[in-house]
Amino acid sequence: MNDTFLKACRGEAVPYTPVWLMRQAGRYLKEYQDVRSKVDFLTLCKTPELAAKVTLQPVDILKVDAAILFSDILIPVEAMGMHLEFTDKKGPILGEPVRTKAGVDKLVIPDTEDSMSFVLDTIKILRRELENRVPLIGFSGAPWTLATYIIEGGSSKNFLHTKRMMYQNPGLFNVLLEKITATVIEYLTAQIKAGAQAVQIFDSWAGILTPYDYENVIFPYVKTCAKALKKFDVPVIYFANDCSGILKIVKKCGADVIGVDWRVDMHEAVKKIGKKASVQGNLDPCVLFAPHDHIEERVQDVLNNAEGARGHIFNLGHGILPETPVENAIYMVDAVHRLSRKD
Amino acid sequence: MNDTFLKACRGEAVPYTPVWLMRQAGRYLKEYQDVRSKVDFLTLCKTPELAAKVTLQPVDILKVDAAILFSDILIPVEAMGMHLEFTDKKGPILGEPVRTKAGVDKLVIPDTEDSMSFVLDTIKILRRELENRVPLIGFSGAPWTLATYIIEGGSSKNFLHTKRMMYQNPGLFNVLLEKITATVIEYLTAQIKAGAQAVQIFDSWAGILTPYDYENVIFPYVKTCAKALKKFDVPVIYFANDCSGILKIVKKCGADVIGVDWRVDMHEAVKKIGKKASVQGNLDPCVLFAPHDHIEERVQDVLNNAEGARGHIFNLGHGILPETPVENAIYMVDAVHRLSRKD
Repeated sequence: MNDTFLKACRGEAVPYTPVWLMRQAGRYLKEYQDVRSKVDFLTLCKTPELAAKVTLQPVDILKVDAAILFSDILIPVEAMGMHLEFTDKKGPILGEPVRTKAGVDKLVIPDTEDSMSFVLDTIKILRRELENRVPLIGFSGAPWTLATYIIEGGSSKNFLHTKRMMYQNPGLFNVLLEKITATVIEYLTAQIKAGAQAVQIFDSWAGILTPYDYENVIFPYVKTCAKALKKFDVPVIYFANDCSGILKIVKKCGADVIGVDWRVDMHEAVKKIGKKASVQGNLDPCVLFAPHDHIEERVQDVLNNAEGARGHIFNLGHGILPETPVENAIYMVDAVHRLSRKD
Repeated sequence: MNDTFLKACRGEAVPYTPVWLMRQAGRYLKEYQDVRSKVDFLTLCKTPELAAKVTLQPVDILKVDAAILFSDILIPVEAMGMHLEFTDKKGPILGEPVRTKAGVDKLVIPDTEDSMSFVLDTIKILRRELENRVPLIGFSGAPWTLATYIIEGGSSKNFLHTKRMMYQNPGLFNVLLEKITATVIEYLTAQIKAGAQAVQIFDSWAGILTPYDYENVIFPYVKTCAKALKKFDVPVIYFANDCSGILKIVKKCGADVIGVDWRVDMHEAVKKIGKKASVQGNLDPCVLFAPHDHIEERVQDVLNNAEGARGHIFNLGHGILPETPVENAIYMVDAVHRLSRKD
């Protein structure tokens, strides 16, 4: 097996820097669009054969060093009892935002086997079809990020409802966060038992918090997740988006790998994280629109800045954009392998 | 005159920490809504008597230590030759995004006296009506931030068009940035000559850049602005939004004051900035939705973290939100004065 990804997660020596891309199964691939044109997004997530098919596409096309389960961070939120739909323009919409005790009480901590078995089936198909070519990453949204969707009822600009509940009703807010945390842990545990060889926790909205609130209110739930997953022999990656201001807190979360966004100074990040964890990231997804020589220069820059890390997994600093020219993504993956090769 | 604001900008001793709020003239004030209900937003910006009237409202109501000209960062973009309108839902829309050499060539470097005299008239009225109660701040968008609006044609999610031009056509991109920079310098110079006693450069979108691009491509234009304004005896504030990852670059811009957003760890910011400049910020605007005792706690936290700064001007870390209860804003301003008083 190409285990460079798992080795880098653990800080072991690798012949070259492994690379995968957030949202690597996605609209920038014609092969993905072919599948997606026949079913809606949620159906694609919930049909194991199709979800597995699109998961494998970037492994074949880009030659990345890891596959990541095709799914959505809001799948467990639907299983908690909220209505979920995806619109092309506004993104996800969740029925009836949860902002009261009655609303929080109605949410359940779902059993993955019962209500999200399609995810486990997808993982099983993938492990079989990957034939150990590359490892398979499972994932979940982080408690805080899922809370923002649950409270706002979708995406948001200022996250006012969420922060209002956090400040005005901390008791209720914490009950909600505990419920989500239990859900995330159960969900990722089930994914690991089904065959996920690493898991990533996406904290897409970590970066809208002050360091004060992140540390005092949100961070304990991140640590709880990392700690609960520690007992499995599977690397845990924590990706906190827009995390420059909270990185000195984030680094203490207990995950094996800290994923950082493109706004982070990678050199400073490596200094801050030290040998506590490996680092993942962090090319600006927009660099994939540059000419090849500039892509090459920027890949080299990220590699240089990650020197001294316990381990480095190359990635974009955010999801690959739908408009990305696929040949540039292929070029970038090859550049990472070529420029980092040690022999 | 209450000159605590100007003194703190210069790092001189003050009896208490001065405070003003970004967007302090705005929709959260009933008095503002009364004026705004009779005219559209652009007309309000362009009618000196009305713009002056809403500028003064928060000085009277909140007891802030500075007034800031009521206007919009896109006013000079309109004067450069683009059609500008404001929609309630989508924010600003600029006609025909500029993405080609022909488009860039068509933009002019406007003369403020000729095409934005209403701004200068507003400043003159304000200086007269303020009667030196508090200083008046003028402002402009920063070159990069204005460039994003010019290239995208409005707000954006990923700023793909802007970054694409930056990567694919750096020559054209730099011609555009030079034109905008000349505009910003002329515009702020005219404001200072009309009576602005400090100027703030708003780099609202600085934080979407990698440190690499910010430093190599964008930062020279910031320095050019700061340097050109240095010859006037008027403090220059540079506010870079979402700047945690680039603060160690930002601090070298040459401005008298560095404004930081709420995501920044203020304690780290003060350490980074050192005695090079004063610091402004950075309470999360959403904290104004918390109960008074929590607002008090968070004001104290910001004050504590700003200890050791050359000077500190208290502010929100972003514009005050329209939904903000005005009594909480009043409470906050009073808390800053009360908690920071040194005698």
